[in-house]
Amino acid sequence: MYSIRLTEDEIPKKWYNIAADLPVEFPAYDQTEEGKQLENLPKIFSKGVLEQELSTERYIKIPKEVREAYKQMGRPTPLVRAKALEDHLDTPAKIFYKREDTSPTGSHKLNTAIAQAYYAKQDGIERLTTETGAGQWGTALSLACNLMDMDCTVYMVKVSFNQKPYRKTIMQLYNGEVLASPTTQTEFGRKVLAENPDHPGTLGVAISEAIEDALNDEKVYYSLGSVLNHVMLHQTVIGQETQKQLEIAGETPDVMVACVGGGSNFAGAVFPFMKDQLDEKINCKFIAAEPSHCPTLTQGDYCYDFGDTAGLTPLIKMYTMGHDYIPPSDHAGGLRYHGMSPLVALLVHEGLVEPRAVEQNDIFKSGVTFARTEGIVPAPETCHAIKVGIDEALECKKTGEEKTIVVNFSGHGLLDLKGYDDYLAGKLD
Amino acid sequence: MYSIRLTEDEIPKKWYNIAADLPVEFPAYDQTEEGKQLENLPKIFSKGVLEQELSTERYIKIPKEVREAYKQMGRPTPLVRAKALEDHLDTPAKIFYKREDTSPTGSHKLNTAIAQAYYAKQDGIERLTTETGAGQWGTALSLACNLMDMDCTVYMVKVSFNQKPYRKTIMQLYNGEVLASPTTQTEFGRKVLAENPDHPGTLGVAISEAIEDALNDEKVYYSLGSVLNHVMLHQTVIGQETQKQLEIAGETPDVMVACVGGGSNFAGAVFPFMKDQLDEKINCKFIAAEPSHCPTLTQGDYCYDFGDTAGLTPLIKMYTMGHDYIPPSDHAGGLRYHGMSPLVALLVHEGLVEPRAVEQNDIFKSGVTFARTEGIVPAPETCHAIKVGIDEALECKKTGEEKTIVVNFSGHGLLDLKGYDDYLAGKLD
Repeated sequence: MYSIRLTEDEIPKKWYNIAADLPVEFPAYDQTEEGKQLENLPKIFSKGVLEQELSTERYIKIPKEVREAYKQMGRPTPLVRAKALEDHLDTPAKIFYKREDTSPTGSHKLNTAIAQAYYAKQDGIERLTTETGAGQWGTALSLACNLMDMDCTVYMVKVSFNQKPYRKTIMQLYNGEVLASPTTQTEFGRKVLAENPDHPGTLGVAISEAIEDALNDEKVYYSLGSVLNHVMLHQTVIGQETQKQLEIAGETPDVMVACVGGGSNFAGAVFPFMKDQLDEKINCKFIAAEPSHCPTLTQGDYCYDFGDTAGLTPLIKMYTMGHDYIPPSDHAGGLRYHGMSPLVALLVHEGLVEPRAVEQNDIFKSGVTFARTEGIVPAPETCHAIKVGIDEALECKKTGEEKTIVVNFSGHGLLDLKGYDDYLAGKLD
Repeated sequence: MYSIRLTEDEIPKKWYNIAADLPVEFPAYDQTEEGKQLENLPKIFSKGVLEQELSTERYIKIPKEVREAYKQMGRPTPLVRAKALEDHLDTPAKIFYKREDTSPTGSHKLNTAIAQAYYAKQDGIERLTTETGAGQWGTALSLACNLMDMDCTVYMVKVSFNQKPYRKTIMQLYNGEVLASPTTQTEFGRKVLAENPDHPGTLGVAISEAIEDALNDEKVYYSLGSVLNHVMLHQTVIGQETQKQLEIAGETPDVMVACVGGGSNFAGAVFPFMKDQLDEKINCKFIAAEPSHCPTLTQGDYCYDFGDTAGLTPLIKMYTMGHDYIPPSDHAGGLRYHGMSPLVALLVHEGLVEPRAVEQNDIFKSGVTFARTEGIVPAPETCHAIKVGIDEALECKKTGEEKTIVVNFSGHGLLDLKGYDDYLAGKLD
């Protein structure tokens, strides 16, 4: 059996909240002396997600309507045994990958987009604003808003907007409005452009613009695709499904890998297993793969910083490159973020998660190997996880260990082929 | 339940060959007085597929290795109830769609690509040549050849090559060599370019070049992605799976729709049900949806013609626009073919299949409706089937009939977003 598939009834009924099981206290959000950042939260987030953000309940019920939308959008997703890749690597390891690319929007992002759109709709909201880097998140939120009969405005990092014109098209197809950030439509966007008319945009700037937009209209909320606790929570359907699927396969994981930008696909895949680890039911190595071009976990500082560039968010304790950091314009736009989920950061800081930085050329090489064996073209972000998964499998080849390696396949790369094109042409540095 | 999923064991063990059940005799292939076309066949096709091409056995066993590759590449594919689309249309009809887009290469084409690569490999062949229009076929054959450790050369219609640069990238990613046809590498390509240096290319020209390439090297075969009987045969895994899935859902089809270019996804989805129809087990309307820009079935002649432009193929009795016809450069490149599967043509001629031509703007409108309700972005080709499916469902709304409508969702449109972009911008004629 290659593909382990669950029925629609096997979609989890609850999200798993790791805040209930943290080994140390979660560092509370803070604000500057000028204040306002904490006051802003109820103006831009729904009651539903704010309650989840601070909750320490271990399990939180998934609303019926959200679960129904998960079903309709193709959950549960398959867990697949990568036999062709194993054969190619000639490794004794077993490699599994969880296919979040099978979502209609091509990545795991729809898991939280649907939930956030649902809770906003409950509050009578008419429009959501957000940022997007690579475009996976903006695509997911555009569709989720459309499914919930709301409007959606997406501030897309300008360098990505220009690199991939058809990302705009698919968001528009889902009824989203797409703007290249920095824009002239917000005060902060105008300020950034005044200082540097050629500013390539960053996730930090785009977040600032989207929050400013939401703060200016009480019928509008802001929605974040990663970093925050409620986003990690919503993504835990991934890991919970994977637990069931590995049980069907008769396996326990020895190594789990996911890529990290803001941390959400990593958290979604890993947190349910981290509970098993803390309960001493499994003995697994958890690896967070990040780009060496934006090495937040391996080279950033663990301290309080803003989630955005303008300083509109509360101060969050996380690994950070600094909120005004401009990462190089590489092809994994979804991992180009100065900060990190405070939950993932805490687990890294406590030594429960190993961070590993990987190089751009290496990750595309791994992506090509994966496509030529398993058939599916991974998103550049996902290639980071695959690279580490392959390295771990090759290590097993040396040691002869028959480890079970689980890679979270966060998304496909069909709208990110420029990176592969440059790689195949030898144009990447 | 939205998605009806089968296990890997439920992949059909045999292909269904409609040649055993035709209501009239199949019109034999012929050749010109100068001859050579029939003699050419064993030089460019494997023994396996040539035997299938002329077989009248009702069921032909799927080789173990091919079935294994089907599993590995994600078969069986889901059949999905389009509840959100039904609600949007406010129709009493039930709409199901068979998701051939879930193949790693994004369409049904891999079903025959794997089989053809397998049989060629059995004959000791080292490289396959082929043509591609939209690119779905060239992508599938590139991957299939790579899986079977063979090389692949793809002659891509120049207008499509230029319209969608990333199609080339994905074929290269799968190890395929991609050339914009007409090329200067074949005698026929040079002849075409000498007459018209700006020739946009056609499937007919690209087929001629690919055949010429294969004829010049005995270690090389040619592979066709549609039209021929063995291709229709390989695709019947689609319809056989759909039969099982509808049985699970407790449904019998009243209307089945698929788009037609060369006819293969239509044949694959419909032929197994056509047997049930001829056996009077069901009473179903079968509709072949074609573009009004290349109306082969609705406006072509039913007569003998070449499958390619140079006259290298045998003469085939089919509907045809003439083998030197140059269709307008619209966005459904996969349906821009002058001819048609002789099996599909025969069934249309006998009145067992209803052909229906639909307009480009209308099909993109239907594609947008589908994406905004069901989430998945259909290929422009697939939009033709969706347009007809929606029309049938709206007819049910008028009459109050609770028909079961099955649409073959032949592929996704993630590499064909330019068409949507032009549609959304109001730029299509």
